[in-house]
Amino acid sequence: MTTTRPTGFSEDYSAEVVAESFADTPDPRLKELMTSLVEHLHAFVKDIEPTEEEWQHAIDFLTDVGHLCDDTRQEFVLLSDVLGVSMLVDAINHRKPAGATDSTVLGPFHMVESPQRELGSTISLDHNGEPCVFAGQVRSSDGTPLPGARVDVWQANGAGYYDVQQPDVQPERNLRGLFDTDAHGRFWLRTVVPRYYPIPDDGPVGRLLTATKRHPNRPAHIHVIAEAESHAPLTTHVFVEGSPYLDSDTVFGVKQSLVRPVTVVDDPLRAERYTVSNPFRLLEFDIVLNPIIRRSQP
Amino acid sequence: MTTTRPTGFSEDYSAEVVAESFADTPDPRLKELMTSLVEHLHAFVKDIEPTEEEWQHAIDFLTDVGHLCDDTRQEFVLLSDVLGVSMLVDAINHRKPAGATDSTVLGPFHMVESPQRELGSTISLDHNGEPCVFAGQVRSSDGTPLPGARVDVWQANGAGYYDVQQPDVQPERNLRGLFDTDAHGRFWLRTVVPRYYPIPDDGPVGRLLTATKRHPNRPAHIHVIAEAESHAPLTTHVFVEGSPYLDSDTVFGVKQSLVRPVTVVDDPLRAERYTVSNPFRLLEFDIVLNPIIRRSQP
Repeated sequence: MTTTRPTGFSEDYSAEVVAESFADTPDPRLKELMTSLVEHLHAFVKDIEPTEEEWQHAIDFLTDVGHLCDDTRQEFVLLSDVLGVSMLVDAINHRKPAGATDSTVLGPFHMVESPQRELGSTISLDHNGEPCVFAGQVRSSDGTPLPGARVDVWQANGAGYYDVQQPDVQPERNLRGLFDTDAHGRFWLRTVVPRYYPIPDDGPVGRLLTATKRHPNRPAHIHVIAEAESHAPLTTHVFVEGSPYLDSDTVFGVKQSLVRPVTVVDDPLRAERYTVSNPFRLLEFDIVLNPIIRRSQP
Repeated sequence: MTTTRPTGFSEDYSAEVVAESFADTPDPRLKELMTSLVEHLHAFVKDIEPTEEEWQHAIDFLTDVGHLCDDTRQEFVLLSDVLGVSMLVDAINHRKPAGATDSTVLGPFHMVESPQRELGSTISLDHNGEPCVFAGQVRSSDGTPLPGARVDVWQANGAGYYDVQQPDVQPERNLRGLFDTDAHGRFWLRTVVPRYYPIPDDGPVGRLLTATKRHPNRPAHIHVIAEAESHAPLTTHVFVEGSPYLDSDTVFGVKQSLVRPVTVVDDPLRAERYTVSNPFRLLEFDIVLNPIIRRSQP
């Protein structure tokens, strides 16, 4: 044969030979994905030159990760999280114009639907934590308030656990609620200040964190999904200013633009509006959504 | 802060920020591995810009691969095989001086110990396939024959199955044998010509091959591990010349230097030596091992 393309496997041309095996993939996107995967995976292997024992360790690690996955535990998502891949995919898919609220990862605890609740009602059914009002306004990027927007909220309690992690301890749907904004785009609800918490660290991902001297913690935060007509939905958190681990979130979810203080408010009229005793703790978080620009149909 | 190093996660600096999280890893090799993994993994994600659905597909695929792994099936090894990673790791770990026999992958079927057998005995206990003599000489790289070298042989039968794949059909330890070379470094045994076969393709790796229009087959081969005192052990195959799939082994295991013909020999004296009827089929494969050079102790 007089072709210049390498046809047999060799260390030098391994990526080219393997990529070529995907040349007949009918779906062009799958072909692109596999070709790029092979290129980067072989570059990684050539970079580190693993021993056969290290390769076997990698196989065993991935096998352990897979074996731990079930309906309530997704260890591959945790692995993606602690390697920053989840946040990178989020960043790529939610590039924002300036002014719109930043997104962050969904996380693994939005596994049940939040119950619809009235504005001002409490989502803390176990009263575990410091009482706090959570309030804000949903606006479009030009500043227009968005009445009737839906705000889905879920969080850990004052001990750092979600309801689904403690089905025998916490009431069902504790610290979850779905709220509709009022005529001025405002939402408000009663809750507790969440605590920082460790991601599940009793599996292979936890062992990886231990071996690399990384802690498993996420700083205190409330999850929010905000949706309004003709606007792109937003999945984000508000982080509690002053929480431990704000500068070292183990899943890299923190953006400075999402950190807000819990303030102590001494204002009898506002306390009465929120149906709490004065003074009270307040976490304020305004949300700015991007309008979806649709071309008019011809 | 006036540091120039990025401290918060961003799309642009994602790899740097995540790599920095591994900075305190005590084991320098683990730190090197994780840093390189993060660099290449993030480069891959930035290259393909996956949608969130594609990321979820990847999580689901890896989870399926993990769930299929058990004591008799290693789907992550298959994935490593069809992506050429196993062969690349083999190539990196067994760079050979010219003249020594090339290595190739161990494969997943060396899961039981081969029984010790006398030179000339048969390993085909089910007589499924065309009878064939397999013979060769084990030598050191300077040409010196290596008496008392151990040659471990295993293969599929004439239908393309290993004994461990058909425990109810094939006799135990069918087509496996451990032989010691004679005073001239020679080995010979009776067997059958193996058939090409598909790797297990009823799982997620098989679905990947189907989706990318790749076949799951390996060309016909006999596995060999050769060991001799003061020499580096060798794990390799001899491939049957003319077999289908020699140019498209789905695990990229073929090296041209390892392909040998099955010839028909008409030689009554040799037939008598091999205790077969004349004429007979012969597959010859000489094996050249590298001496281990040890420095004398001071």
